[in-house]
Parts: sequence; structure tokens; C-alpha cells
Amino acid sequence: MMDTIFKHRSIRKYKDTPISDADLKEILEAGTRASNTGNMQVYSIVVTQDPEMKKKIAPFHFNQPMVTQAPVLLTFCADVNRFHKYSQFRKAEPAYDNFLWFVNGAIDTILASQNVALAAEEKGMGICYLGTTVYMAEQIIDLLKLPEGVVPVTTVVVGYPDENPPLTDRLPLEGLVHYETYKDYSREDIDRIYAEKEALEETKELLKENQKETLAQIFTDNRYKKEDNLQFSKLYLKVLQEKGFFNHGV
Amino acid sequence: MMDTIFKHRSIRKYKDTPISDADLKEILEAGTRASNTGNMQVYSIVVTQDPEMKKKIAPFHFNQPMVTQAPVLLTFCADVNRFHKYSQFRKAEPAYDNFLWFVNGAIDTILASQNVALAAEEKGMGICYLGTTVYMAEQIIDLLKLPEGVVPVTTVVVGYPDENPPLTDRLPLEGLVHYETYKDYSREDIDRIYAEKEALEETKELLKENQKETLAQIFTDNRYKKEDNLQFSKLYLKVLQEKGFFNHGV
Repeated sequence: MMDTIFKHRSIRKYKDTPISDADLKEILEAGTRASNTGNMQVYSIVVTQDPEMKKKIAPFHFNQPMVTQAPVLLTFCADVNRFHKYSQFRKAEPAYDNFLWFVNGAIDTILASQNVALAAEEKGMGICYLGTTVYMAEQIIDLLKLPEGVVPVTTVVVGYPDENPPLTDRLPLEGLVHYETYKDYSREDIDRIYAEKEALEETKELLKENQKETLAQIFTDNRYKKEDNLQFSKLYLKVLQEKGFFNHGV
Repeated sequence: MMDTIFKHRSIRKYKDTPISDADLKEILEAGTRASNTGNMQVYSIVVTQDPEMKKKIAPFHFNQPMVTQAPVLLTFCADVNRFHKYSQFRKAEPAYDNFLWFVNGAIDTILASQNVALAAEEKGMGICYLGTTVYMAEQIIDLLKLPEGVVPVTTVVVGYPDENPPLTDRLPLEGLVHYETYKDYSREDIDRIYAEKEALEETKELLKENQKETLAQIFTDNRYKKEDNLQFSKLYLKVLQEKGFFNHGV
């Protein structure tokens, strides 16, 4: 397990080897064993295996080749719909159509997703999380026919790796962990914490490629730009409202 | 690993055995190996070990005894502050003060938390997630001195178990997993999916204790009531606004 955790890399090239039904069932079961809110399990997982569905969902994940290449895509959704239905059929009045329960559902589904991801890796598969799920939530909802009370939070690509990439760097622990209270970052702290990342050969190549002076600029100017951040924020909030997670107003 | 995942139970009674610095470091490192948004790692972890701090944080977790009993509490936070600081010191203009980046940060921090939780369990420790973190975010922010751009999302209690509870039930896989498109639940589906849970001896005792007709009513009337859900939704939204995650308006 420790080995699986410490050797994780996102896999972006997959063999066409299918995942057996037994293996798929086992990794999904692993997901369900995760902690969750009050054992209400306010999430659902939508499995995409059909090549036609993969072709249709690919554009919502910016046509990254792995989406159609990998045998399985798992879309993890916050879901209060099932518990609402359950309540209605059991003489109870549910009130989970609010922001708290989007957060609870998102936490539940991400905990489940990480169990699935680690279980898959433990069995020799590779995985990749797709952040595009939040950007393209509206289109994914239409394609997967998600009803009121259900929104996609993340997607995990699963399959057998056709590449063996190196580990990616991480910030040192002292950059991420605070003891007792949060110590805000001084310029010296930032210099120290990011020193290793900035010294990487890979970073230097990125700067040259992108003709930027600093790594931060590659993020703010190219990868995650202000106008995109604002647009996707508004779109996702709109989706949450439409799917009934803001019934108290905002 | 599979064993660790499949044997997970939340632990609510802890021995006073401390966690060694080496073990704490190792499980935190395990957290940092998780997938995250663009390798920006938009999260922070606040470690609570000081008995005085535990006493102060306990009321925000409804004074559950495990909070002061366990050696370590880890508060997992969505954090764009570090990346904002980094950008400002590197001639870049960051724009991560919006809802998209709360969602990205929440996903990053929950992925890290589940790695930490499983690594701890793999090393013979027990864990429990505290959903109260979202309810009491404002008070936790004050105590842990979280700056703008940082909000708590969940807390994990970690320590050596002083109980050996049985596995808790889960809904059958067919209740949580959809193939290709979401199949909404009919009354028959709900009856079938919840049959096992409703037949448990534990459920029957709960109904007697709470003098309720159905399990759903215990959730809607007692555990997660409408007025609480609405209040905590509004409080958490207020916290997100105050911490700068709604700079586009709502």
C-alpha cells in the first residue's frame, strides 16, 4: 500500500487491454468502503465503457487521447437524489437540496474516488484524474443524464499503462504543513519552498518553450487564466443552482 | 492495501500512545503524493498536537471525546494563499480567488486526506473524519489563524485504536453505480437497495431508541435537520465569501 501511494504517477497513455468485470467490481467496492457522511453515501459513480459514449464524452475532456484509449472512465458525482427518493418513499421530509450537501457529497465522492484509484493501482492499473469535469459539468450532465440533486465532481480514467513516466515533484512537507496555527508565507519562505521546483530541468524547458520569465507566469498566463477561472466558476455555480443545491438562495 | 481499504472502520476511541515524528512525517508525505490540480497543490494541512489547542478546538467538533483523546488532529484546508503569494513574488498576476478554485482546492485536500488516512491505517493507526469541520469553519479559521484564501474542508483524527468496532454496512454496488447513463431510482429500486440496511438489527434498535417509523426519518428529523442544513449552508458560503472565493460575485 505505502508503495502504491508513494509510486503514484498519473498515466496518460493506455493499452487497449480491457478491465475484467471482476476487477472493475472489486475497485468500485473498494470505493464504497471509504468514510462518508453519516453512512448516507451521498454520491454515485457513472461508468463509461461504451466506445460511442467515450467518443461523445471526449470533447468535454478537451479531447485528451487517453479518454477514448482507456477501457474505463468513472465519473464521480455528488448525489442527494437517491437519499431524497429514499426519504420520500419512507414518509420522511428530506432537505438536502442545499450547499452544505453539495460539499458533503463532493467530499464523499472524492474519498470514494481515491479508494478506487489506489485499488486500481494496487492491481497494476494506472489512473488519471480529469479536472475538466468541473469545467464541463453542464455537458457531462446532459450526456450522462444526471437528474436534479446530482452533479459531477471529478472523473478518473482507468486502464493498463502504456507508459512509465517518472514521479513528479512535490513541494517539501514544510511548505504544506503547519503546526498548531497557520504560519503565513514570507518572501523567504516562498523562495525556499519553491527552490527545488524552480531548479528542475523540466521547469527550465517549460520557461523556454513558453517564453516566460517565471514558472508562476506559465500558470497565471497560460494554464489557468483569469478569464477561464471566472467563466468556469460561474458555470459551475449555475450548474449547482440548476441541480438544486442553492434552494436557500445565495 | 486492499486489506487496509476493505477493513476500514472509523475509530472513535483512542489510546494515549503518541504518534512518532517519523510516522507522522511519513503519513503526511503519503498525502502529498496524491493527484492534485496541475501539480499546484492548492491545499494545506494544519497539525493539532498541543493539548491546549485540542481543548480549544474540541467544542467546534461538538466535544466528541476522541478529539482530545487522540494524539493528532489534521485539519485539511483548500489553500490558494500560498500560490497567490508565490505568484506575487514572481511577477505573475494570480486569479484563484474564485469558486472554481475552492472546488479545486477542496478536491486536492480531500485526495491528500484519504492518502494520509490509508497510510495511517496501513501503519496500524485508526482514523475518523469529522464532518463538523464544515459547520464550524468560521471558529476553526479563527483558532488556526487561517488567512484569506484558506478554508478548512475536513478534519481527520489520527491515533492508536482503543476499540475494535465491526465493519459498517454499505449500500450494494448496484445502488451506487450506473452504467453509461444514470438510471433514476423507482420505488422498487429504493426498496431493493435499502432492504439490507433496513433489515439490520442495528437499524431496528435505532428505530426503537428514536421512536421513529423509518430510518429515513432518523436522518431528516434528528441527525441532519432542515434548519441545520440551511444554517450551515449559509455559514459556509459566508466563510467562502469572506476568505475570497467569491470575488466574481454569486
